[in-house]
Amino acid sequence: MKIKLTLIASLFVSATAFAQNTDSVMLRKIYDEALVNGQCYQNLHYLCKNIGQRLSGSANAQKAVEWGKKVMESYGFDKVFLQPCMVPHWVRGAKEQGFIIDGQKRTPVAIAALGMSVATPKDGITAQVIELHSLDELKTLGEAAIKGKIVFFNRPFDPRFIETGRAYGAAGDQRFAGPAAAAKFGAVGVIVRSLTEALDNYPHTGTTVYDKDGKKIPAAAISTIAANQLSATLKKSPKTKFFFKQSCMQLPDAPSFNVVGELTGTENPNKFIDVGGHLDSWDLAEGANDDGTGVTGALEAVRVLKAMNYRPKNSLRVVFFMNEENGDRGGDKYAELALANKEEHIAAIETDGGGFTPRGFGFTGLQPDALTAINQTWKHLLEPYDADKLSAGGGGSDIEPLREKMPSTVLIGFRGDSQRYFDIHHTPNDVFENVNKRELELGAAAMASLMYLIDQHGLKF
Amino acid sequence: MKIKLTLIASLFVSATAFAQNTDSVMLRKIYDEALVNGQCYQNLHYLCKNIGQRLSGSANAQKAVEWGKKVMESYGFDKVFLQPCMVPHWVRGAKEQGFIIDGQKRTPVAIAALGMSVATPKDGITAQVIELHSLDELKTLGEAAIKGKIVFFNRPFDPRFIETGRAYGAAGDQRFAGPAAAAKFGAVGVIVRSLTEALDNYPHTGTTVYDKDGKKIPAAAISTIAANQLSATLKKSPKTKFFFKQSCMQLPDAPSFNVVGELTGTENPNKFIDVGGHLDSWDLAEGANDDGTGVTGALEAVRVLKAMNYRPKNSLRVVFFMNEENGDRGGDKYAELALANKEEHIAAIETDGGGFTPRGFGFTGLQPDALTAINQTWKHLLEPYDADKLSAGGGGSDIEPLREKMPSTVLIGFRGDSQRYFDIHHTPNDVFENVNKRELELGAAAMASLMYLIDQHGLKF
Repeated sequence: MKIKLTLIASLFVSATAFAQNTDSVMLRKIYDEALVNGQCYQNLHYLCKNIGQRLSGSANAQKAVEWGKKVMESYGFDKVFLQPCMVPHWVRGAKEQGFIIDGQKRTPVAIAALGMSVATPKDGITAQVIELHSLDELKTLGEAAIKGKIVFFNRPFDPRFIETGRAYGAAGDQRFAGPAAAAKFGAVGVIVRSLTEALDNYPHTGTTVYDKDGKKIPAAAISTIAANQLSATLKKSPKTKFFFKQSCMQLPDAPSFNVVGELTGTENPNKFIDVGGHLDSWDLAEGANDDGTGVTGALEAVRVLKAMNYRPKNSLRVVFFMNEENGDRGGDKYAELALANKEEHIAAIETDGGGFTPRGFGFTGLQPDALTAINQTWKHLLEPYDADKLSAGGGGSDIEPLREKMPSTVLIGFRGDSQRYFDIHHTPNDVFENVNKRELELGAAAMASLMYLIDQHGLKF
Repeated sequence: MKIKLTLIASLFVSATAFAQNTDSVMLRKIYDEALVNGQCYQNLHYLCKNIGQRLSGSANAQKAVEWGKKVMESYGFDKVFLQPCMVPHWVRGAKEQGFIIDGQKRTPVAIAALGMSVATPKDGITAQVIELHSLDELKTLGEAAIKGKIVFFNRPFDPRFIETGRAYGAAGDQRFAGPAAAAKFGAVGVIVRSLTEALDNYPHTGTTVYDKDGKKIPAAAISTIAANQLSATLKKSPKTKFFFKQSCMQLPDAPSFNVVGELTGTENPNKFIDVGGHLDSWDLAEGANDDGTGVTGALEAVRVLKAMNYRPKNSLRVVFFMNEENGDRGGDKYAELALANKEEHIAAIETDGGGFTPRGFGFTGLQPDALTAINQTWKHLLEPYDADKLSAGGGGSDIEPLREKMPSTVLIGFRGDSQRYFDIHHTPNDVFENVNKRELELGAAAMASLMYLIDQHGLKF
């Protein structure tokens, strides 16, 4: 592409030409502040490169809490405080080993223990493999076919979903519920195809959930390339075995914190509009897009409004939730304290799908017709910024407890473009270099804009 | 992000649930074919890795022509043919050298000759530097201040533009017209800040245009980091000099080709709907996003329709235009032949902004109210695919000559998200690895969908 006449002509539509009224002027100022003086990208750089992975209970998670508090204080918010909560403390231990055993041939493959998994025996497990594509197949085949084997769940992402989060949802039961279900049928271990459409050699970790009183068997993710290899080997040699060894451990719960910053409302100090992401991350990389972009983007949304000397009617809060990945303890604690303190939470925005180019927002819990009204009154304000897809359904694990405890709270999910997220999600590739500065800034500006509009006009139409 | 209840709930909105009528069923099939059986990503891989850079007139450009024809033939299109055209043949020569000279201190910096620039004298040029931020400043300062100096145009991208193409348009005159303008005031050379918001050490090449009868002075792009360094040095030491050496050459025009594939219309074989991108690229990398994604995406749009056994009413053409970057000869030739052959071109779609996640399309030349009608009738069909932003204004350098010669032709620009494009544009980083498979496939499906809708319903409402 060289310089086009059409682009040159478009110069005359200047960056400020669509400032037609107070709200649109305000949104333009929000975007200018985020794009010209943005601090989220450098904050993300610090979080990724100077702290790094920050799994709940780890020393790094504590460093991240201290850093978050310090940055919020440096911005001169009206209040900055920590909310103590106890969190699970799971550790991965030594690097996992996995081998496909086809007769005498042992082929090493890339695996990673699922979060919260138990260890294998010290010398690992070797067993025959049975490949399944759904949890229902366990019932169909029954204990006779499963007992003593390693269950290999190999249902791939369905590429036909446009939003990749839906493909994740459609394949995800294998990871979060597969090990508990397979244990009931006598499986001795579980290997799960990584939850991604990308064909590469990186295993994607993520939580698995055991039944409270059920048997806990070790479970690991296997890369998509290795999953295809294992499947092909099984077709050729149905008696193929798998060996894996992992030494992960569940330590006693550890103390940790949510980090909260607030611009206190001038009219309704006890009514809140929240924006947040989760500060904890998986341990394989820097948690850049999951959810470093979330916390730094949410922080930026409130920083931008503060930098513009905006005095909100209601209290605006940025929340760095702790322990989204393997427990939701931070989200639970935030809601518990909100209820105890008799706070009213008008709306809570969560951003936990990566710092990708904004599409819009999804809303859960609006009154009837309110979504139509929002589209009629606010959509055109967000349209110049390509963040105007305002649809039903949305939220996030950290803010869902708020609505459970206080059903009037509207939950809002920030919708960034989903295409690249699951290529890197929960892998060693979730690093700073895979975040684009402008995409992150545009997301922060979109959230600041929505907070401003809700603060000014509410969500009751 | 772990697996959300909201995502699991959304499973029940299945991939095919919104197939409500013929058009929406057809669009769903188009997307399924592109996402499940897509071939554009592997075609792009071949073009980037087995051919690579393909500047007009180069041996690689000829290889790309042959490859394009062969792939189109393999898809069984009704017609595949080449359109001969003569193209400029500029070559870069040896790697350029640039130094900031502050007294005795010589600091090497990253530069790249602008496309179509002349060489420096064999031993390079050394001259005092004058930093300007606009072409108008040349007039304000006048010949006395400019003569004998190297003009350093250092106006940065304006980050406030939401679409980065607008920032490119707003800064671009420095590159394409700066050298010709500075020559009139006696400058001996020009250094241009790279046209990007990214702060890195890669110079961005691209065409400069000399006045036909004016003096041709050598011109190079300098990386943004080096531009900042040069500017800072000038502030400290106003007599700072710059040295640069480049050996680029304009060889005689060379023969080349557009590559055209066609599904011939069953009702109106002489009426055409075109989709295309440009096959040539700059010489610093693989031309992955500029415009490998364009040609492979456009090809995929027609392949998908062919694979579905769709028989179009009108003729559908995919065009690999030659020489967009430094001459537009292919685009001119295509229009010239269309006029000579008395073809009617209903619409032409160009994709030349990278293979990024689709936003929608821009239209130029629609009849009054047609855009409103399109939004009323087609927008909801494209909405499930997030490709429904249908706006006024759009086209591309390769298709503009069609409308100049045949004013009834509607020009359509594919709009992918623009945020990442100028980070890599015209640099050594424009490589396959910076393209996301799904983003490319979704763009191809969006173009196939629009071609189908135009073929079925026309553009006259």
